[in-house]
Amino acid sequence: MKGFAITRALAAILGIIGLFLLTPVIVAVFDSTPEFIMSFFLPSMASILISAVVLWLTWSYRGDINPRSGFLLVSLSWILVSAVGAVPFVLGDAIPSYTDAFFETMSGFTTTGASILTEIEAMPRPFLFWRSLTHWLGGMGIVVLAVALFPLLGIGGLQLMKAEAPGPDVDRLTSRITGTAKILWMIYLGMTVLETLLLMLGGMSLFDSLTHTFGTLATGGFSPKNSSVGHYNSPYLQNVITIFMVLAGTNFIMHYRLLTGRFRLLWRNSELKAYLGIFIVTMLIMGFNLYREGVYPDLATSLRFSGFQTASILTTTGYATADFALWPGLSQALLFAMMFIGGSAGSTGGGVKVVRIISLLKQGFTEMKYLLHPRSVFTVKLNGSRLKKSVVYTITGFIILYMFFLILTTVVVAMDGKSLLTSFSTALATLGNIGPGFAGVGPTENYSSFSPAIKWFLSFIMMLGRLEIYTVLVLFSPQFWRR
Amino acid sequence: MKGFAITRALAAILGIIGLFLLTPVIVAVFDSTPEFIMSFFLPSMASILISAVVLWLTWSYRGDINPRSGFLLVSLSWILVSAVGAVPFVLGDAIPSYTDAFFETMSGFTTTGASILTEIEAMPRPFLFWRSLTHWLGGMGIVVLAVALFPLLGIGGLQLMKAEAPGPDVDRLTSRITGTAKILWMIYLGMTVLETLLLMLGGMSLFDSLTHTFGTLATGGFSPKNSSVGHYNSPYLQNVITIFMVLAGTNFIMHYRLLTGRFRLLWRNSELKAYLGIFIVTMLIMGFNLYREGVYPDLATSLRFSGFQTASILTTTGYATADFALWPGLSQALLFAMMFIGGSAGSTGGGVKVVRIISLLKQGFTEMKYLLHPRSVFTVKLNGSRLKKSVVYTITGFIILYMFFLILTTVVVAMDGKSLLTSFSTALATLGNIGPGFAGVGPTENYSSFSPAIKWFLSFIMMLGRLEIYTVLVLFSPQFWRR
Ligand SMILES: [K+]
Ligand SMILES: [K+]
Repeated sequence: MKGFAITRALAAILGIIGLFLLTPVIVAVFDSTPEFIMSFFLPSMASILISAVVLWLTWSYRGDINPRSGFLLVSLSWILVSAVGAVPFVLGDAIPSYTDAFFETMSGFTTTGASILTEIEAMPRPFLFWRSLTHWLGGMGIVVLAVALFPLLGIGGLQLMKAEAPGPDVDRLTSRITGTAKILWMIYLGMTVLETLLLMLGGMSLFDSLTHTFGTLATGGFSPKNSSVGHYNSPYLQNVITIFMVLAGTNFIMHYRLLTGRFRLLWRNSELKAYLGIFIVTMLIMGFNLYREGVYPDLATSLRFSGFQTASILTTTGYATADFALWPGLSQALLFAMMFIGGSAGSTGGGVKVVRIISLLKQGFTEMKYLLHPRSVFTVKLNGSRLKKSVVYTITGFIILYMFFLILTTVVVAMDGKSLLTSFSTALATLGNIGPGFAGVGPTENYSSFSPAIKWFLSFIMMLGRLEIYTVLVLFSPQFWRR
Repeated sequence: MKGFAITRALAAILGIIGLFLLTPVIVAVFDSTPEFIMSFFLPSMASILISAVVLWLTWSYRGDINPRSGFLLVSLSWILVSAVGAVPFVLGDAIPSYTDAFFETMSGFTTTGASILTEIEAMPRPFLFWRSLTHWLGGMGIVVLAVALFPLLGIGGLQLMKAEAPGPDVDRLTSRITGTAKILWMIYLGMTVLETLLLMLGGMSLFDSLTHTFGTLATGGFSPKNSSVGHYNSPYLQNVITIFMVLAGTNFIMHYRLLTGRFRLLWRNSELKAYLGIFIVTMLIMGFNLYREGVYPDLATSLRFSGFQTASILTTTGYATADFALWPGLSQALLFAMMFIGGSAGSTGGGVKVVRIISLLKQGFTEMKYLLHPRSVFTVKLNGSRLKKSVVYTITGFIILYMFFLILTTVVVAMDGKSLLTSFSTALATLGNIGPGFAGVGPTENYSSFSPAIKWFLSFIMMLGRLEIYTVLVLFSPQFWRR
């Protein structure tokens, strides 16, 4: 029975969330705020108990999950962890409304970082810790999915991996995947320890270092400070976070190659080169623009701020060191352009992803050659090998659906009486898992003013974006439910 | 010699423009404004003279134009007619700056309707007539191109025609094309007469009726009135223009089918159904929104205004009967969404075009089926027949390049110090040949405040959009110039 396999997997995930719900208890103990212990301990125990009972009851139904159930499992697990993860906020009265708590938690697990909080620093630290931890878990979750599950499901990410290692049969891929996933977890953990230490060296407290690290590596963007990373006037701290944001937006397989010294494979990766190129060029233009317009007194400071904000938006992290809504038009337009790109495939970043954009741009320019030589055959190369036609089709489908949901979300949000720019940037910021946008959802604003219906809708859009649209959308097709 | 063939074709076009430059002379005579006669007579005579001399000198070099020269010819002819058509404005001091005059004329011939004029009604009528006539010529020109030339060049429009009439060899297509083009000219002329008469019946003067008809049928949008069609408080006049805008945004081959009673072929056309569906649904939602928010006192009035504005933006005409920048967010968001769609292929409308959007959306949803049944083969149907893979590729290339130039234009315009919303809607409004946008280029604003450099850049973008990107872009590829 497929239903039991999915139930067992969900139960396992519930158990894991139950265990992680104990970590804020430690924070509460250290902070001497025992009044918040129960807010986490109760849902933790309930989760672990239910998980154990379900696993025990369905023990005889163990079995593999087929690709089709995989789609359902992925969507249901993101909903489950958000539904459960929202409970402590309500129990502890940190976020009284369950709608708000669910939005905030889904925003956390999808690494969007869109917040309904108006006074972040007023929230007790166990809740701030849990809020940032949802980022970290969601970020790790998506990398594992991108590497382990998406390829099997035939979704964008998967195809892109296949494109890179041409022609592996699925079995070979599967056996390699478990090993790869383990390595990527180790890298993620290692980077977490490293960034935390580097931030502490710059004078940040352990709590702030950990929570900011969670937000950075997951490209999440929740900060325990009202003014985000702008709270710290330290160039060192800002630069450390800039560098780790860039790393988090890079395909994690590239980190592995870097660590194992396979530089030639690194250099052959079209996406990595394009990603770093976009970052550097944008940072430079924006830096000069900020300097010329007199936003910052010198070029070095301008480049620091432009580098931070470019990395933050390109990787879809969403941290801010300045209110970029007040920056000159050109800088804003560049950030706006970044919102259409996103991080790399196999990273924790969201958005359309660099590889999809360069693939289709290459395809677009190749079509020009066909106009001149209609009878010739031209191939599009990606990462040194031929880009398969089926991959181009998948990417095309993804991009058009992405645009479709972008426009749909704009219209739906506008129904709430929001301005055009607010509506469109809300769509970009939620579907692309960025967090902040422009106007009403700018870096100094938040999502508290949306109606409950819109908050639920945006929660869905955040999940849709995080799970690469198809994973979720396929569940709405009648064919999915036909046996 | 290919060079001579192109030169001869350009000379012929110059001669035709020279003849049309005589029509404002008639207006000047009727208006008893002889001081403006020379502004048109001189460039007219010069054009006709140069045309005749060039044609005579190259008489022995007559020959066919091959597809490759076709690309060059199309782009050069749009530049030539704009360069020549701009001269009277400068000679008559109606637009003192040649940059402004060129922008206005390119905006006319590309049927964009973006204007640098701040006081339209202050302009003498011969110039207003010429300004509107550029629309009419450009609109007719693009329909002929779409039907006659683009198919041969293998550009979007062509492919779409091919998709509809499956598998014709190029020769059969060519022989059919001359006949089709003639029929379409007749339809265009017939509609011009009909709309002019209907507007005059509603009390509009002959001059106003003609100029507004030119702007309507070309989906151009230039009006001789400061407040566009909003100048006339007549529901009848507004509704007539609404209907003709919708007709102008329809594939002209559909008009032919309608006139010859081939309704079944009409009904089989996916694009027509989608186009009318989008128009009706958007008009209804927007109408109810305008009524509910109290913008207009009753539902009928609200629907009249929503119908007019939806048709105007969807077909990329750009006329306005109200300052929609002051409308509620939902109505604005719907108009914004329309800006991403555009008219039908083979119409005078600009933008991405409905057929491209439905083709890729169908492709996108088909990809979902592949996720569930990776080994099956699914076909995408368009107009009752299979959508060819090569067509999907061309459309994909077009859409990604369209998005690319949209973002690029946004960034370039922002360099001029414009706000984000102004920059982005300028990009949408010029590349999509719409005309008005939001914020700084809203319906009550104009393009006068841009710097000369940006005006030249936007002139290029208008041409790029009008000629379906590839026609122009292919000229920048090194392979084009290799023999
Ligand atoms: K984010
Ligand atoms: K227009």
